[in-house]
Amino acid sequence: MRVVVPFATEMPKTRLGGVLTDAEREAFARAMLSDVLSALDATDHDPELLATDPVESDVPVTVDDRPLTEAVNAVLASSFETGAHEAVAVVMADLALATPRALQNLFAADGDVVLAPGRGGGTNALLVRHPAFRVDYHGASIRDHRRAAEQVGATVREVDSMRLATDVDEPADLVEVLLHGSGQSREWLREAGFDLDVTDGRVGLARDGTPVETN
Amino acid sequence: MRVVVPFATEMPKTRLGGVLTDAEREAFARAMLSDVLSALDATDHDPELLATDPVESDVPVTVDDRPLTEAVNAVLASSFETGAHEAVAVVMADLALATPRALQNLFAADGDVVLAPGRGGGTNALLVRHPAFRVDYHGASIRDHRRAAEQVGATVREVDSMRLATDVDEPADLVEVLLHGSGQSREWLREAGFDLDVTDGRVGLARDGTPVETN
Repeated sequence: MRVVVPFATEMPKTRLGGVLTDAEREAFARAMLSDVLSALDATDHDPELLATDPVESDVPVTVDDRPLTEAVNAVLASSFETGAHEAVAVVMADLALATPRALQNLFAADGDVVLAPGRGGGTNALLVRHPAFRVDYHGASIRDHRRAAEQVGATVREVDSMRLATDVDEPADLVEVLLHGSGQSREWLREAGFDLDVTDGRVGLARDGTPVETN
Repeated sequence: MRVVVPFATEMPKTRLGGVLTDAEREAFARAMLSDVLSALDATDHDPELLATDPVESDVPVTVDDRPLTEAVNAVLASSFETGAHEAVAVVMADLALATPRALQNLFAADGDVVLAPGRGGGTNALLVRHPAFRVDYHGASIRDHRRAAEQVGATVREVDSMRLATDVDEPADLVEVLLHGSGQSREWLREAGFDLDVTDGRVGLARDGTPVETN
């Protein structure tokens, strides 16, 4: 099985711009990527990066500067056309809570197409065993991927995982990393001064002791 | 195993006030409760309600008008003191995406205390097999419940479920119900005119064709 992690090198995580500087967003995105690669490594699969620009990494890197959907579909097409792979998994680089166990459940699930939905309609990870299936990450991709699988006659399974459903896009997602993370992402946030802010029973985010707006 | 579903009859779901009227919130809360009870029923456990006021239901109802934490702790104390139960599960009434499978995974997990975290630090479902463990739903309860278990020498397991992590509190959560629900809650939303609003690749909420603010 080929396991690909798409990674955008330029201006990652724009919706975290309200709480992190450009340099911080880049460093935090790298920490999340590192956690995802570590978790994949522990599943005994060899992940590779699909990056928008050349990037230093311990794992093989394919550079493709096209938008995510086109780049991933090129990987799917080439993997199945050459017959080199019978399955391709695509795992997002911002799944800071991903564990080997959650990923293994994805890889072990039956189905021509296995989907791990993300909060808000995204598809945070997927496993493709059908050569004709193609992705479309625009919009409510989980819904579109269900339909796309149906259209090519592929069976679909969805895995139920909070850890895979939590892509870290917005300030509120940092709360999840602080509560449930265990790797470099959480460590980076703690070192950057982030902590939970629990006031009047509501759980928010604080930096250096000062509450941070998460909406 | 005793399975208890707490249900607040008055002014439920205040954070949905921006998109639903009082009467709608009450009806939608009832639809979600119905979905949770149906899912529990399919696990071959007999759920009971722990309601703040007398309420009509097909399942047994215990009325306790105290705050959630006190009412649940009274259930835990009486269940273990009488020796009538060796395990008590507490499942929130707003888990509109709960499936029998997700609940069965909770019930089948090892551990003196099994926790299903909710998004934002809550504890959406838990299973208690240790007589000294007590709940505290205020604040970041998942963190507090980990500590509380440790303090009484109880082993802790957490289940990783997007379906159990999604409690429906805010307008953005309605998107999840539309995307992943299959029961009365989704049906109620569709009949009330709600649908996804996919604009510029972002997934939002619309009612009767008009976008609804979800922040």
